[in-house]
Amino acid sequence: MWGDLDSLRIVFYPRYYEWIDACGHLFFEDLGLRLGDLWKERSILFGLVETSCRYLRPGRYHEEIEIVTSIQEIRSKTVLLRHVIQRAGSGEIMVEGSENRVCLDCSDPESFFAIRIPEDIERVLRQAMAQDSPGDSRPDGVS
Amino acid sequence: MWGDLDSLRIVFYPRYYEWIDACGHLFFEDLGLRLGDLWKERSILFGLVETSCRYLRPGRYHEEIEIVTSIQEIRSKTVLLRHVIQRAGSGEIMVEGSENRVCLDCSDPESFFAIRIPEDIERVLRQAMAQDSPGDSRPDGVS
Amino acid sequence: MWGDLDSLRIVFYPRYYEWIDACGHLFFEDLGLRLGDLWKERSILFGLVETSCRYLRPGRYHEEIEIVTSIQEIRSKTVLLRHVIQRAGSGEIMVEGSENRVCLDCSDPESFFAIRIPEDIERVLRQAMAQDSPGDSRPDGVS
Amino acid sequence: MWGDLDSLRIVFYPRYYEWIDACGHLFFEDLGLRLGDLWKERSILFGLVETSCRYLRPGRYHEEIEIVTSIQEIRSKTVLLRHVIQRAGSGEIMVEGSENRVCLDCSDPESFFAIRIPEDIERVLRQAMAQDSPGDSRPDGVS
Repeated sequence: MWGDLDSLRIVFYPRYYEWIDACGHLFFEDLGLRLGDLWKERSILFGLVETSCRYLRPGRYHEEIEIVTSIQEIRSKTVLLRHVIQRAGSGEIMVEGSENRVCLDCSDPESFFAIRIPEDIERVLRQAMAQDSPGDSRPDGVS
Repeated sequence: MWGDLDSLRIVFYPRYYEWIDACGHLFFEDLGLRLGDLWKERSILFGLVETSCRYLRPGRYHEEIEIVTSIQEIRSKTVLLRHVIQRAGSGEIMVEGSENRVCLDCSDPESFFAIRIPEDIERVLRQAMAQDSPGDSRPDGVS
Repeated sequence: MWGDLDSLRIVFYPRYYEWIDACGHLFFEDLGLRLGDLWKERSILFGLVETSCRYLRPGRYHEEIEIVTSIQEIRSKTVLLRHVIQRAGSGEIMVEGSENRVCLDCSDPESFFAIRIPEDIERVLRQAMAQDSPGDSRPDGVS
Repeated sequence: MWGDLDSLRIVFYPRYYEWIDACGHLFFEDLGLRLGDLWKERSILFGLVETSCRYLRPGRYHEEIEIVTSIQEIRSKTVLLRHVIQRAGSGEIMVEGSENRVCLDCSDPESFFAIRIPEDIERVLRQAMAQDSPGDSRPDGVS
């Protein structure tokens, strides 16, 4: 929308990060991993280690976008999400984003620390990753 | 800065609210009412009932601004803050903002309710208000 | 979404202004007054004189909202928009917002000035206002 | 400030990108490359190809930060900026950010394209880069 644009009339890039962050949350919930529940019931959070975006085409006023989120890699403590921001309709890629999220124990709100991803959660993530594998033309997590 | 501007190359107005909100917090702290302490030690917060802004002159790229915060009115449960956003140097007024903040009991994070402003806090607020009265050319709370 | 919340886990209020601003733009476009066209073809913009919000119920994580935009008043140079932010489903009102927008001649990007709303535009606005009058239970501009 | 924090009471990460973007602009201006002038007089802009941030320590309420910006690499069309966000005082690094900026011809606002960095600008950039080289403990561009 209007407020997402800068003086060049293209999307101000931190906005893309706000959107992919939201999609990261929706993606987890789509897998049945409700953030609120993980936090309250198990004191677990997936915090950020690193994020990045490559800008291929500028976003302009009133364009409709679609963000496709998938898992690119799972390690013992981290999960790497890939977010592709594309024009709705044409599917032209505008931005390729990534978020590397680490599993955190947040029992103490003043000091989080990284832990291994619990087995039951890792299983859910691996399953989601498998479903997006080669041969699958339509990844999960379209928001 | 650049990211605060819209396609017209003037400040996107929700930004002004972000800034006056920040000044509201700084103003309270300046009076010795540290938000974090009130919250943790006394389960008290000053939440918002109403906010408004009048836009007199547009803000443009790289202008330096000064925000002068003062108390306009104190009621049993609320305190009305006035924020004047002006060009640094000339003092030309760009925006006149107001925040009406209500004293909240937030012991239960799922359900806040309004309470009378505790006496000791009211005393501090009344004193700050008196210091900004007629005759005083330089209000407190320049941030 | 997550990024719209503050430390109290309720919506950070400047976000509401971002959303009602967007709805103001959509509302105009819904009436056939495309902002981009007005700007480029006629050097006209509807800038802001004053905005305000009253906060009735806090917004929380993952709630779906609906914003109903209508015209409250038309004057020679200004149009007053009313935005009601409500919970989708229940329709409980969370925030009542207003934007007073003034018709601006923006031929000179460095200096805008207020003008009378052109007759053809006023006609469209008056018609939209009439349609939302008493007896109409479902205002235009649901976004 | 308050509005920069999320529900975990740590800085919501897109905010870091807003801040490093601002520092990128200030850095260029510090070198005498005023963005507004480049744009208006020469139709040149430094747009973004890629950005990234690594998060080492969370930012919390009311912490003062310092951002140190320097040039990491210059290529024919791009300049890679490095932004280190650190706690004011202790100098502890919170975030390491990067912005890869490409020189754009923006004569046509609807379609920008990459060009070689003009010689006079490259000279200024190379000089700034040299000044931050080994042996220099205090890089330019502290904002």
